[in-house]
Amino acid sequence: MPLHPDLLPTTPLSHDQAMRLAIAAAERVRGTTRPNPPVGCVILDARGIAVAAAGTDPVGGPHAEAQALAAAGERARGGTAVVTLEPCHHVGRTPPCTGALVEAGIVEVVHGVADPNPVAAGGADWLVGRGVAVVGGVLAADIADGVLRPWLHWQAHRRPHITLKTAGTVDGLAAATDGSSQWITGHLARRRVHVDRSRRDAIIVGTGTVLADDPRLTARSGDGALLPHQPLRVVVGRKAVPADAAVRGGAGPADPDTPELGGGFRHIQTRDMDRVVDVLADLGLIDVLVEGGPRLAGAFLAAGLVDAIESYVAPGLLGAGTAVVDTGSATTVADIARFRTTGVENLGGDVLIRAVRGPVAGRG
Amino acid sequence: MPLHPDLLPTTPLSHDQAMRLAIAAAERVRGTTRPNPPVGCVILDARGIAVAAAGTDPVGGPHAEAQALAAAGERARGGTAVVTLEPCHHVGRTPPCTGALVEAGIVEVVHGVADPNPVAAGGADWLVGRGVAVVGGVLAADIADGVLRPWLHWQAHRRPHITLKTAGTVDGLAAATDGSSQWITGHLARRRVHVDRSRRDAIIVGTGTVLADDPRLTARSGDGALLPHQPLRVVVGRKAVPADAAVRGGAGPADPDTPELGGGFRHIQTRDMDRVVDVLADLGLIDVLVEGGPRLAGAFLAAGLVDAIESYVAPGLLGAGTAVVDTGSATTVADIARFRTTGVENLGGDVLIRAVRGPVAGRG
Repeated sequence: MPLHPDLLPTTPLSHDQAMRLAIAAAERVRGTTRPNPPVGCVILDARGIAVAAAGTDPVGGPHAEAQALAAAGERARGGTAVVTLEPCHHVGRTPPCTGALVEAGIVEVVHGVADPNPVAAGGADWLVGRGVAVVGGVLAADIADGVLRPWLHWQAHRRPHITLKTAGTVDGLAAATDGSSQWITGHLARRRVHVDRSRRDAIIVGTGTVLADDPRLTARSGDGALLPHQPLRVVVGRKAVPADAAVRGGAGPADPDTPELGGGFRHIQTRDMDRVVDVLADLGLIDVLVEGGPRLAGAFLAAGLVDAIESYVAPGLLGAGTAVVDTGSATTVADIARFRTTGVENLGGDVLIRAVRGPVAGRG
Repeated sequence: MPLHPDLLPTTPLSHDQAMRLAIAAAERVRGTTRPNPPVGCVILDARGIAVAAAGTDPVGGPHAEAQALAAAGERARGGTAVVTLEPCHHVGRTPPCTGALVEAGIVEVVHGVADPNPVAAGGADWLVGRGVAVVGGVLAADIADGVLRPWLHWQAHRRPHITLKTAGTVDGLAAATDGSSQWITGHLARRRVHVDRSRRDAIIVGTGTVLADDPRLTARSGDGALLPHQPLRVVVGRKAVPADAAVRGGAGPADPDTPELGGGFRHIQTRDMDRVVDVLADLGLIDVLVEGGPRLAGAFLAAGLVDAIESYVAPGLLGAGTAVVDTGSATTVADIARFRTTGVENLGGDVLIRAVRGPVAGRG
């Protein structure tokens, strides 16, 4: 989907500035492109001014490059394409982006992360052979840790990238000893959670959460309306999900054959988290969010399956209650699952800590 | 102590910019001025360029205004004095600052927080009567929530301002189930804790922490050297503090009659936190930091005595262990002690959340 031209800056952009705009275009389509990566592309004219920006369309639709080139038209000639991922070089559902860039008269391609897919890769080399200047690795770490991380993880491991969401007090409590928990975080944090849901392929909760809270698990805007993209709602655990549970109904197509359209419901009736991940992989789900409760979060943690955290920390203390994560097992300090902080946001006083596991994933 | 002239910007400053510089000068002397407030003053010459900046000297020494005026000399004539607190108007150990400002030829005084002390107040009115333009309330909320908060709290309540420090994982754990805890936070966070100690009047830990960890509780630099100002080291709890405990030795004068010089050791042998606060108030301690452990922190929390928090949150999950705060009592969500976030810092991936209790304290 191209950005509206009014959203484009009117002064010449550096490579980094243009890449930030491309990342923003990619973020806008996150959650809607599976199995394709959410890519962003900006076209700079010969003066370096952004004339078009776009993110990948849903599968079968045009890639970001094709859309941005179409929006730019003749202004692309002699210009630069700035793309978050190395342009693809294979014929899939759509023609290769490399050829389209040359045809449009692009003389320079700036990309972030190199394509790890051996079928689609080689685009940069082919472009250089056609006389196009190619600059790779621009903001590669930001992209690999951010918008492209789940897709890169899938390319490397063929299993979903699992983000654990936590929300609690500074002393790590999600609920009081009597089970009460509303509202520990404020409305900005809660709004952010719904937007985050709309950018995921699936949300997972445990049966305990379903039985205790009967959540809908839909992604809603502030006024309660459903956001355009809905994640698959997954419940994990051996207990039955009641026939009238809210999580069964809700938004989006319930057809399990078209999970890329979003929405729908699954119950994965096991306590084995490796089995859960296998089922999610079979469904082709790339980017999943574990929302709780504490025992399910603890099971993913204990299984070493948490790839990233999004932790909302409210500036409050409770002193006793239910922890945000509970493995229920003895620990020593060496057992800490350590993450690498990629972002800290102040959301009206609540603090969102975003962090990822392991080294930077992508090659520049 | 005046700032080195090389630290002053060379272009004209707005009131807000000059006040930020004055706040920085005040922060530099925090912890060394008791019972006086840590005040910062910047002198702008007639062109609006900063020619001097200073913070309050230790008690008996000159106030910030007198030092900044001395450093500015003739360049103060026709200029502006920017002060974090309304200039004092009474003869104490030093002459009133108001008179010194007029004598130096200052034509405008910009201040942050109004003086809440009825003896020292009235400075602004007196200055206006002498033909000096006075602007009050500049960055008043930042100052009242920050560098002046403990002193304003003392003026209002005649008891110490209590900041609770916590350090743990995202799931609120300070140690594993086996008691191991080193190192949950990284070296930048640990360095920050030592600098913070050097800016407090006293640090408090429980006897449990002394018996378990035998901490020195001194404020040290990265190479282990003692920082210039040391807080009083206070141990709270009914158990005895061993004769060879590290907390008994360490830096600074041990003379309880000169607590303003820093250092020294006290054992307050009670479990009644109100009693602890009374003892600290009798010692004239204004700004104290509770460092733990969890039960002592919980006792202060349960007694409603926590005025602010400095919470270091490491991007890690442990799943089970010792909480950063433990009241050991049943809770409902309405029991949350809620704080107002005043700052969020990313310290090499660890996140410091600074937050205070209650509404903005100072008047502008």
